[in-house]
Amino acid sequence: MHALVLEAKDQAPIHKSVADPTPAENEVVVQLKAAALNHRDVYITQSLYPKISYPVILGSDGAGLVGDREVLINPSLSWGDNPNVQAEDYSILGMPSNGTFAEQVVVPTSQIYDKPGHLSFAEAAALPLAGLTAYRALFTKCQLQVGERVLISGVGGGVALFAMQFAVALGAEVFVTSGSEAKIEKAIVLGAKGGVNYKAEQWHKALLAKAGGGFDVVIDSAGGAGFANFPKICNPGGRIAFYGGTRGNIQNLNPQIIFWKQLSIFGSTMGNDEDFRGMLDLVNTHRIQPVIDQVFPLREGVAALDRMDQGLQFGKIVLEI
Amino acid sequence: MHALVLEAKDQAPIHKSVADPTPAENEVVVQLKAAALNHRDVYITQSLYPKISYPVILGSDGAGLVGDREVLINPSLSWGDNPNVQAEDYSILGMPSNGTFAEQVVVPTSQIYDKPGHLSFAEAAALPLAGLTAYRALFTKCQLQVGERVLISGVGGGVALFAMQFAVALGAEVFVTSGSEAKIEKAIVLGAKGGVNYKAEQWHKALLAKAGGGFDVVIDSAGGAGFANFPKICNPGGRIAFYGGTRGNIQNLNPQIIFWKQLSIFGSTMGNDEDFRGMLDLVNTHRIQPVIDQVFPLREGVAALDRMDQGLQFGKIVLEI
Repeated sequence: MHALVLEAKDQAPIHKSVADPTPAENEVVVQLKAAALNHRDVYITQSLYPKISYPVILGSDGAGLVGDREVLINPSLSWGDNPNVQAEDYSILGMPSNGTFAEQVVVPTSQIYDKPGHLSFAEAAALPLAGLTAYRALFTKCQLQVGERVLISGVGGGVALFAMQFAVALGAEVFVTSGSEAKIEKAIVLGAKGGVNYKAEQWHKALLAKAGGGFDVVIDSAGGAGFANFPKICNPGGRIAFYGGTRGNIQNLNPQIIFWKQLSIFGSTMGNDEDFRGMLDLVNTHRIQPVIDQVFPLREGVAALDRMDQGLQFGKIVLEI
Repeated sequence: MHALVLEAKDQAPIHKSVADPTPAENEVVVQLKAAALNHRDVYITQSLYPKISYPVILGSDGAGLVGDREVLINPSLSWGDNPNVQAEDYSILGMPSNGTFAEQVVVPTSQIYDKPGHLSFAEAAALPLAGLTAYRALFTKCQLQVGERVLISGVGGGVALFAMQFAVALGAEVFVTSGSEAKIEKAIVLGAKGGVNYKAEQWHKALLAKAGGGFDVVIDSAGGAGFANFPKICNPGGRIAFYGGTRGNIQNLNPQIIFWKQLSIFGSTMGNDEDFRGMLDLVNTHRIQPVIDQVFPLREGVAALDRMDQGLQFGKIVLEI
């Protein structure tokens, strides 16, 4: 089969022919039709990820066929028995195990789910990792309720967009931040009520004014200096979840604001099997359509990774296989 | 009646004779036998509290008689309907309403509970505010489970000591930090497995070594620079709750550690009626004995406030009335 193989540190992945994978017991071969990129893939090619092993086929997201069955893959492997936290041998598909940037991938049979009928293979491939992460942050952690006001920071990335779409589908009033006015405009087209540019001074005050009140739920992946504004604009009883920290350590967090408002702050990643089923149910029930930024052929995977690295995308970057 | 009256900004409270209070409908007069101090009382005398009104009788904690009935008072007034967060008109007994540093206090009848039979009036008066705060942080927020490992920071204060005693009673393995070796030794006598001095460099590494592993629950009231060590020494799935921030803003919190370990960080205060009942049940079931630092007569209330301000106490400072 053909695959994008990362052969050594600080090299770009190479499109080449490799042996077809062989399934063990309780495993299945998926004939991939589409895969999607995540920041994780970029970080691994840049050696910015712990315990990288070579050679490896990257890619956590994929959709395709098992025989005649149209499927997508849950990339959360070996979560374990505790719903609150992943087990020690937990891993994510696509390093250390070979991933979806290939014509075939082998996964445990338990990771296979029916592709939502209203989605193309490209759209279905866009869903698993980012959709799962968004679902767990928004519902399992923050317990979003109908009619609450939600802030999604850094809209444009895959998880942020799914979090926005899921919250809109549930009937929440959703606002966004972005460093790009164009991305805010696109978010409004998709159902956001409004947004502000986080590069502006005192963006949080402008946002409060625009929203006409505080936020019940905040979903973030940046951390850094801006994070300390979230408790200030939360309503009493508010919940903040984050699944990334691209802006570095959180600074200047005022404890009095947090305890007096009874706020909760949750770290969150990916999700367990129940989260995955919940996410698929939500997508099927509300016929949610993943936002695709751009589709590349598999052999142009390096160009796709470059686009993600530049942060220009709005939605998921997909590889057609 | 006699009472300690705070008459104006930056004055010490004065022990003087004032009119007996008159109950309205659904209110009751408690003939106080004992009251207990909290940091809140000190902060108010130092004008370090929002919206102070004068003249006022301070004091949130009290136990005494309603007729023949031996009672203690829940000082959380008007929590409201949402168990997650206090309502807008929530207040704490002892400013703006007159409190327990007096021979009599008027409170809503709903705030009165039977004094635990195994406690003296002085011990019962020590319980309400601090016990309630400890209970909510440990159980309602952190959902402490039997057999988990718990860290209580800054042991010696009322809430920290109750949190320690409650966790020990539940069968948790409890460690403490303090700036005083003597307080650590006293905590060990009360059931803590060990502790470290938070003034030491890298205290969190020494604590991990001493405990033989990480922590499932951390209860803090300091915040500040030291807080960033808590996620580092938490086990996956760990919960951190804080009800104070005496060391100022939280700095340098690493988001990756928090999300990868699926940690939760909760701000917490006082508690609702259900928390109060749960706290009393726990104290009755396990016959928990509040730790009394020192008992002063009511007329020496200013000396009692001075002792609390100096931070020398281990346990609650009580006024006998």
